[in-house]
Amino acid sequence: MSRALPLYAYRMGIDTHQEPRVYMRADCAICRAEGYTASTRLQIKTESRSLIATLNTAADHILPHGYIGFSDSAWEFLALVQGQAVTVHHVPEIRSLSALRKKIYGHPLNADEISGVIQDIGRHLYSDIEIAGFITACAGGRLTSSETTALTRAMAQIGNQLHWPQYERVFDKHSIGGLPGNRTTPIVVSIVSAAGLIIPKTSSHAITSPAGTADTMAVLTSVDLTLERLRKVIDRTGACLAAGGKVGLSPTDDLLIRIERALDLDSEGQLVASVLSKKMAAGSTHVLIDMPVGPTAKLRNQKQAKVLSKLFHDVASALGLTVRCVMTDGTEAVGNGIGPAEEARDVLSVLRNESAAPTDLVARALYLSGQLLSMATGVDDVQALQQAREILHSGQAWIQFRAICEAQGGLRDVPVASHHIELRSEYAGKLLGMDNRRLARLAKVAGAPASPEAGLRLRVKVGDSVEARQPLATLYAATPGELAYAREYFHQNRDLFEFSPVNTPLPQAEQQQ
Amino acid sequence: MSRALPLYAYRMGIDTHQEPRVYMRADCAICRAEGYTASTRLQIKTESRSLIATLNTAADHILPHGYIGFSDSAWEFLALVQGQAVTVHHVPEIRSLSALRKKIYGHPLNADEISGVIQDIGRHLYSDIEIAGFITACAGGRLTSSETTALTRAMAQIGNQLHWPQYERVFDKHSIGGLPGNRTTPIVVSIVSAAGLIIPKTSSHAITSPAGTADTMAVLTSVDLTLERLRKVIDRTGACLAAGGKVGLSPTDDLLIRIERALDLDSEGQLVASVLSKKMAAGSTHVLIDMPVGPTAKLRNQKQAKVLSKLFHDVASALGLTVRCVMTDGTEAVGNGIGPAEEARDVLSVLRNESAAPTDLVARALYLSGQLLSMATGVDDVQALQQAREILHSGQAWIQFRAICEAQGGLRDVPVASHHIELRSEYAGKLLGMDNRRLARLAKVAGAPASPEAGLRLRVKVGDSVEARQPLATLYAATPGELAYAREYFHQNRDLFEFSPVNTPLPQAEQQQ
Repeated sequence: MSRALPLYAYRMGIDTHQEPRVYMRADCAICRAEGYTASTRLQIKTESRSLIATLNTAADHILPHGYIGFSDSAWEFLALVQGQAVTVHHVPEIRSLSALRKKIYGHPLNADEISGVIQDIGRHLYSDIEIAGFITACAGGRLTSSETTALTRAMAQIGNQLHWPQYERVFDKHSIGGLPGNRTTPIVVSIVSAAGLIIPKTSSHAITSPAGTADTMAVLTSVDLTLERLRKVIDRTGACLAAGGKVGLSPTDDLLIRIERALDLDSEGQLVASVLSKKMAAGSTHVLIDMPVGPTAKLRNQKQAKVLSKLFHDVASALGLTVRCVMTDGTEAVGNGIGPAEEARDVLSVLRNESAAPTDLVARALYLSGQLLSMATGVDDVQALQQAREILHSGQAWIQFRAICEAQGGLRDVPVASHHIELRSEYAGKLLGMDNRRLARLAKVAGAPASPEAGLRLRVKVGDSVEARQPLATLYAATPGELAYAREYFHQNRDLFEFSPVNTPLPQAEQQQ
Repeated sequence: MSRALPLYAYRMGIDTHQEPRVYMRADCAICRAEGYTASTRLQIKTESRSLIATLNTAADHILPHGYIGFSDSAWEFLALVQGQAVTVHHVPEIRSLSALRKKIYGHPLNADEISGVIQDIGRHLYSDIEIAGFITACAGGRLTSSETTALTRAMAQIGNQLHWPQYERVFDKHSIGGLPGNRTTPIVVSIVSAAGLIIPKTSSHAITSPAGTADTMAVLTSVDLTLERLRKVIDRTGACLAAGGKVGLSPTDDLLIRIERALDLDSEGQLVASVLSKKMAAGSTHVLIDMPVGPTAKLRNQKQAKVLSKLFHDVASALGLTVRCVMTDGTEAVGNGIGPAEEARDVLSVLRNESAAPTDLVARALYLSGQLLSMATGVDDVQALQQAREILHSGQAWIQFRAICEAQGGLRDVPVASHHIELRSEYAGKLLGMDNRRLARLAKVAGAPASPEAGLRLRVKVGDSVEARQPLATLYAATPGELAYAREYFHQNRDLFEFSPVNTPLPQAEQQQ
């Protein structure tokens, strides 16, 4: 039949991110015979692989006759070489789509149906539109606790899985996020693994924030470890501080998160499944969940945190995991640095017990370490906190951190930004609050996390009395253009620093610093 | 600021359908400074227009330095010329997206919020992913009657609107679809406009079916009329049989339908809004809704039809429209032809009162014409049906049809397919049923509606006694490849014709005809 005729692969040089596209000439005989037009979904087969992609039609001058063009991600997924023969087919029936429609029409799904959806998403059979339908149908509390459990299990079973038969208990921690500079993980992992806990920590790069733990750690050492290498690091030190990417735990999570982010949705069920599927796949048995609560954090109030905490417990218990959720103060950025390099500086100053180390970061890291130690040993919180403090203050945590970095490839120096500027107050008065979301945005506008040295160093804390023209923060960027752009953003968003109402603004002329 | 720097427009020659894309080099200074990466949404501005598009990054060899590439639809929407300067910006805050999220989280929207969403979709500010979120959040009965009313009004108010101050009442009809060959519209419009009703009928091209009324009419005359031309046709004849496209009534409907189709969803609220917004924008006051009910029609049973009928009445009454919904037999394809040309042949044979005219199409067209006439004059159904029959049988309808075609640009001959084959039965027995969905698919596989002469002519009706090897249908195609492909589809789907269980299949050797 006509559809088995081969076409020859051509790399278009177009990056469509994770959304595979193919390009065929509108005058191609196969397009005409099969009725393929722009936006048709097609299955492309090589000898060994197959992929579903969205078709765009291309004019004669950009694609040779007899060829089919591929976007970068489609090319890589099929592991093509230039001129390789491929065949093009109508998309086979994707059976899980009937489960998707069932969910969209408001009916709950059973574990098999959810597993079918997740497997097909993992095989790249779903279009972005179909994934958006799934995300939307599960949002707004429409995913039950048992559906969330099934979703978590299905996600954990795709991709790599780590097993630790030699260890009885394996620990992990996760922070719900939304708090700039909350870089406790390297400190907590160092403290608790120095105390003998096994903690194979993989972290993500930033999705919407100016730095993820993986971005901060990438400033200090190699984080892109293969599964084999990661096992060796853990065997040697009991811990690791790696990026999740190459390890490939719960890879469907990335496919879902990309669409959640495009919709700016953060549904509870998806969040729990995202976190716990990675932990399950990492072979963890005990997980501490840090839930910062504050008006501009991801969790706005205690009620939201309690609902989420209950869902975490229900799902974890159904999966045989032990979780402990702790609510922490999410009203203020943690530490003084925002952005990969500046956050790395904070981490190092805490581990080295420097006098200038940010006290809030120290306190949070000790609290979370204590919680993990008490989960492990059953000692009370006060004793566990004291143990954590001793490990940090004695320098054992710093030794352990260096050992982990050494095992991952060596500890590096923190880079210095080539451009900076002071952001000064236009008021004299008491600092009442900071808007976490806009602080994060400011660091991103300056270039974080793509430029690791870009970001902010805060010079004031909430509660401080500030003089007019006193520096509130130092802004760092890799290029003058990014610095100017971020400065402009700051001038348009000066109210992200909130002062007591007694302030008198400076005369107009002095504001344009 | 750096983001105001211009780039020069370059037509990529890539057709992405209605989804605008732009292409920038990954090494472009603006991409780097602004942090734009593949799949970032960007606003592109010219002197007079602006558009939001999804970014793909392109390799050096396919895009000259300093240029920005455009997909065909983006190029046309911005009315660009090669080398024209454009500026690239971060996407401004799309305020209606907060209403979208509110709906996704399960809260009803008020009329202003719905209007905001629809206006922004109409301005091409939403990504496919965001439209999919809206469609999904409204599916499964989650759109209330008052939300549907607001949606209909908002859709009708975008694009062109027709007003008919000179006419007290303006009629229209709509068929819910799913029934191949159900081409009553040209006949009904001819009959009722011959009786003096004003009926400015615009129809759509096929979306998922082998022919829409616009495809069938395009075989017979010009259907792509401007608004001005359409008014003239109606002034002259009281009616028209035009395609909706160029007239531009409720254009957001097309944007929503594209995504509904990709999700294979048909939600009641969206369906009612889709139909009634077009009628409202066309200035209609009285609308007849034909609801074919049958196991393989769009409406599977009477209960579904009743729910939909109630929603039509509720929304129409809130909008000041009069609707009448009639349930009709949807168990069997109507007429003998499926596909634009074959359906046109059926229409002509009915209007010309030929003895071979399909009786089911005649009966349906008369019934619907009678219903419209009784809506108009208040006479009872029996009298109205008799009036319709007289208009058809006297040849007045045929005269009126030719007058309409003449006003639109002249009546054309129906084209003949260059390739055909008989599809024969492998059974002897009684024909119990046909699967409408697979009949439609068969005609599409043969090339309909893109090739207007492609399709099917049925040679049997449900209830007929069929001999082994008797032709069930003639299959038409424009090319041998398409004919072979459709024939193969038929052999894999022979059970779309359902026979009484007493049949004996032919020996294997004779099946491969």
